[in-house]
Amino acid sequence: MAQKTVLVTGGAGYIGSHVIIELIQDGFDIVVLDNLVNASMESIRRVEKIAGKKIPTYSVDLLDKNAVDDVFKKHKISSVIHLAGLKAVGESCELPLLYYKTNVGGTTNLLEVMEANGVFNIVFSSSATVYGLPQFLPLTEDHPVGGCTNPYGKTKFMIEQILSDLCTSNKKWNVAVLRYFNPVGAHKSGTIGEDPSGVPNNLMPFMGQVAVGRRASLTVYGSDYDTPDGTGVRDYIHVVDLALGHVAAVHKLNEQCGLKVYNLGTGQGVSVLDMVKAFEKASGKKIPYELAERRLGDIASCYGDPSLAAKELNWTATRGLDEMCEDLWRWQSQNPQGYKGAEGSSQ
Amino acid sequence: MAQKTVLVTGGAGYIGSHVIIELIQDGFDIVVLDNLVNASMESIRRVEKIAGKKIPTYSVDLLDKNAVDDVFKKHKISSVIHLAGLKAVGESCELPLLYYKTNVGGTTNLLEVMEANGVFNIVFSSSATVYGLPQFLPLTEDHPVGGCTNPYGKTKFMIEQILSDLCTSNKKWNVAVLRYFNPVGAHKSGTIGEDPSGVPNNLMPFMGQVAVGRRASLTVYGSDYDTPDGTGVRDYIHVVDLALGHVAAVHKLNEQCGLKVYNLGTGQGVSVLDMVKAFEKASGKKIPYELAERRLGDIASCYGDPSLAAKELNWTATRGLDEMCEDLWRWQSQNPQGYKGAEGSSQ
Repeated sequence: MAQKTVLVTGGAGYIGSHVIIELIQDGFDIVVLDNLVNASMESIRRVEKIAGKKIPTYSVDLLDKNAVDDVFKKHKISSVIHLAGLKAVGESCELPLLYYKTNVGGTTNLLEVMEANGVFNIVFSSSATVYGLPQFLPLTEDHPVGGCTNPYGKTKFMIEQILSDLCTSNKKWNVAVLRYFNPVGAHKSGTIGEDPSGVPNNLMPFMGQVAVGRRASLTVYGSDYDTPDGTGVRDYIHVVDLALGHVAAVHKLNEQCGLKVYNLGTGQGVSVLDMVKAFEKASGKKIPYELAERRLGDIASCYGDPSLAAKELNWTATRGLDEMCEDLWRWQSQNPQGYKGAEGSSQ
Repeated sequence: MAQKTVLVTGGAGYIGSHVIIELIQDGFDIVVLDNLVNASMESIRRVEKIAGKKIPTYSVDLLDKNAVDDVFKKHKISSVIHLAGLKAVGESCELPLLYYKTNVGGTTNLLEVMEANGVFNIVFSSSATVYGLPQFLPLTEDHPVGGCTNPYGKTKFMIEQILSDLCTSNKKWNVAVLRYFNPVGAHKSGTIGEDPSGVPNNLMPFMGQVAVGRRASLTVYGSDYDTPDGTGVRDYIHVVDLALGHVAAVHKLNEQCGLKVYNLGTGQGVSVLDMVKAFEKASGKKIPYELAERRLGDIASCYGDPSLAAKELNWTATRGLDEMCEDLWRWQSQNPQGYKGAEGSSQ
């Protein structure tokens, strides 16, 4: 069987770089498309080093439909993993039009180009945010969706609807919607990881930056939630487990699966303070923190039931809290400034 | 006070042509933007004749952002009435991507161009379809929304969400979302009216075409609904009343109203058979009809509470069933083939 080529949009980002490595390990050829707005070419250089091969990478924005089409003309793509998109909740409230344009408009462009080029297999990176305020826990894929309170979450839900309607309209389409819980950690090599620009929105990169001295202390938003220790409870998943979920999803598409929706999480709820303790243990660093007011829109607890993915994708997250923290720490301590400074270097 | 200029997207269509006439009557200057996919320049020529003035009209697609921007550079626009969009429920199920691209993508382009040109006032043509299956009747603006079952309805709901988020993000925006019930009838002159391409999706134009002999008989979908006579009940509103609602909404925008949402309907539920009777009376023609199975996605009854628009816009629909039918009949009998055949003529 000839090696199949997977196009990864947003392939230079945190999730993308880890997904590519696992796809290559599994025997796929890769083409990357990334507008490099929130990502760095350095991550691709490092992925190439880990994988020991060159990865064709195009600095292309999905809003530039002709440029996207050129990439499809240049390579024989069998499936697309669509990770590209803006993802900051707070920014999406300030610049909603930018989010709708980039995420929804970018996706419709991509889907049109795929259709025009006879490519009907796509994995979409959705989010547990589409469930809105949980009506029950753990969240299953049939929990009501659409109650998102911010534009970022709404774009994810809109794209899910578009993909669903597309599958209804044309049986050629095979779509795997992956609803991520909270991806954390980094590749075992310590050479790629999460590198947010500006102040991190998420707990783990923030904690990592505190540990290496880039920030004085961690702010814990909300300590009076109805949870065991009062802090927010989330379902953290190791980014390598998440990446392996994408590989499994690509195989599922090749079974002509139609529309499939899967939670990708561990099923375990972990509190902020649990995570702080685990990270202190892994890093050997004390993480000073301050308790602050709840953030608007945050919920007490959110964790998913991953059993459908276990059953249908034969995929389960296997990496635990300690490994998440150890791997994050390896990346963060070896790259205290992320990819910055390494740009243009040969490391 | 200088005359204000309103840009009407989709201005050559059924609703658009009637809206323009009422805006001109009210003293506004008009610029029309229409891609003419579902509309004819002949309607603009006739509106110009009724209004006694030329209307700058641009054959431009909202997906061509530069061309839209050119129109904003050429005219000093104060408000936009955004009617452009694809609107066939059945077609939207077959070609969902086309609908999301055209309606949602077209709107985000328009909004970006407006913002770039300092225009923050917009009236949006939404639909009662955003309410989904009614949980109570009459529908009020605070009835739950989003339960649409077809892509057309979902695009309307998505655009409502985008507009709402935009108003939250920037207080400069003034948005009137008008949720139409079922627009019917035509201008009193009989020279403009609804001219659907292909088989009409809606009752009234279908009935009009039966009356003039273009079609043999009317198909009534569903006669076993839980309604007084078993046929579907809708809230028909005269298109001139609807147009006057838009004029009232433009004035509201000028009060710096922020986001406003209004039902535009009569508040009266009318069955298909009631409508057939009224149209037979108005036209003096017998309308043969056949009872058929319910159509997938159709609901038994749908009518709105228009009291919020009465209170805040000082607007009420005043034209009754007989007038709707008489005006439709005048248009249809004087133009049995719609605008076709009149293209390029000077009538």
